[in-house]
Amino acid sequence: MTEVQTLSGHFVGRDHHFAVRVYFEDTDFSGLVYHANYLRFLERARSDMLKCAGIMQRELFEAGEGVYAITEVNIKYRAPARFDDDLLIVSTVEGVRPVGCRIHQRVMRGAQLLVEAEVKAAFLSPQGRPKRQPAAWIAAFERLLKE
Amino acid sequence: MTEVQTLSGHFVGRDHHFAVRVYFEDTDFSGLVYHANYLRFLERARSDMLKCAGIMQRELFEAGEGVYAITEVNIKYRAPARFDDDLLIVSTVEGVRPVGCRIHQRVMRGAQLLVEAEVKAAFLSPQGRPKRQPAAWIAAFERLLKE
Amino acid sequence: MTEVQTLSGHFVGRDHHFAVRVYFEDTDFSGLVYHANYLRFLERARSDMLKCAGIMQRELFEAGEGVYAITEVNIKYRAPARFDDDLLIVSTVEGVRPVGCRIHQRVMRGAQLLVEAEVKAAFLSPQGRPKRQPAAWIAAFERLLKE
Amino acid sequence: MTEVQTLSGHFVGRDHHFAVRVYFEDTDFSGLVYHANYLRFLERARSDMLKCAGIMQRELFEAGEGVYAITEVNIKYRAPARFDDDLLIVSTVEGVRPVGCRIHQRVMRGAQLLVEAEVKAAFLSPQGRPKRQPAAWIAAFERLLKE
Repeated sequence: MTEVQTLSGHFVGRDHHFAVRVYFEDTDFSGLVYHANYLRFLERARSDMLKCAGIMQRELFEAGEGVYAITEVNIKYRAPARFDDDLLIVSTVEGVRPVGCRIHQRVMRGAQLLVEAEVKAAFLSPQGRPKRQPAAWIAAFERLLKE
Repeated sequence: MTEVQTLSGHFVGRDHHFAVRVYFEDTDFSGLVYHANYLRFLERARSDMLKCAGIMQRELFEAGEGVYAITEVNIKYRAPARFDDDLLIVSTVEGVRPVGCRIHQRVMRGAQLLVEAEVKAAFLSPQGRPKRQPAAWIAAFERLLKE
Repeated sequence: MTEVQTLSGHFVGRDHHFAVRVYFEDTDFSGLVYHANYLRFLERARSDMLKCAGIMQRELFEAGEGVYAITEVNIKYRAPARFDDDLLIVSTVEGVRPVGCRIHQRVMRGAQLLVEAEVKAAFLSPQGRPKRQPAAWIAAFERLLKE
Repeated sequence: MTEVQTLSGHFVGRDHHFAVRVYFEDTDFSGLVYHANYLRFLERARSDMLKCAGIMQRELFEAGEGVYAITEVNIKYRAPARFDDDLLIVSTVEGVRPVGCRIHQRVMRGAQLLVEAEVKAAFLSPQGRPKRQPAAWIAAFERLLKE
């Protein structure tokens, strides 16, 4: 991989790129990355993508406004990652609605696609009910769609 | 819940029942169970179901025969679980093929459905290639289907 | 192990007994349980011990009173656990102060001691400052000491 | 923090610096980082430190030579980290012996010390027995001590 691997990701066109390295904690005794841990990688990438797009999740949560929650994940595991692998998570916003968004994500090792996922998220009030997300967030997502 | 909550699950007809309690580790700062952690609950339930059905994963792995790997998960999050909730994972074998199986799983809190998932798994050789699973395992899965 | 392995633990004299089974998620590619995951096992046992002693952590947290936080852990790993092992966590309250407590914990596999830990916890206000814990909790801990 | 936050760490004199960002997965419902997860951060930093020092853990494990296992951790939690915090793990080799090593680690947020740990590790054979570590590893650790 020729990209510099910083802790923060960045946009390449409308694709968000985010680097992940596989550590002991991510593997299981089969020697491969434990399947649930890819969801942690994907979430790190989405949190970083939101941040890069100007969406500060922590501020809104602490202000009592609400928080994003995952409502659906369709994930396909095509090839396994192993300890010390360098992975790249490529995330693309596929749709935005007043109460949520849909994001497509791929886990790559070099040119090889390891995992592919379709993730739906909804904005929830502190009481856990679906809620219209802030207008600035909708605008931020729409910019990602149009680019 | 009136069932005795043992660490091991058991079959109720062809449904496998497995109890899980939510601990600190399972939640995130939103106050709810972190979405990836349901996949850990589901995997515990499947491991227990295999064991109840006479399928000893560890023995075959240690004998160098192979290991089950998840190839696809479709998971829908309908309502959140919280710290100290008592959950029941209900797992049902939906299909079995020479190289894998398909399992439907639900996370219940009392009568309420919280999470629903469709999981596909494949048997892999130690080199990570799809491999025909042991005949005794296929037979065990088929007994679960036919009941 | 001849004890019935329920999801909830129980007291045997002043020792709290809590059963844990090792799943895929707990291991790493070395084939053994990942060292940080024993801290998850220990925390499950402590949460259950508090509950058995009548200390409801969730209620006080939700009432805005505060939460227990770990301030120190000294943990010694003597022998490894593996996938599908049945473990028993034995926890003993060693001391109680107005703002915290000290708990000794052992991870056993049958008669074999695998891991031993000394854990100190403090009660924190929602703002994260040390705070006198509820009198009923202090009384509950003292009953465990005296027994 | 003025350092560029790359995924890989680097040495500053004999201290190894490694950046970690806090994600949803790292927190619990108290709003703070779950105490066991700092051990994951510390392990990532140690794995990176070994790599920077030319110690390739995966190669030796795959060659059937052995693997490092943690034998003791003394960890003090002084102040909590929260979601989206940028942390720096500073690791220093304090001692090396034929069968193991001792590493001191600190978790910093800017100039503030959050967590401090003393970690002892031993090299184990694939059968789980203490084993003399490779001479090149001992030499690599000694260079870190002497610098």
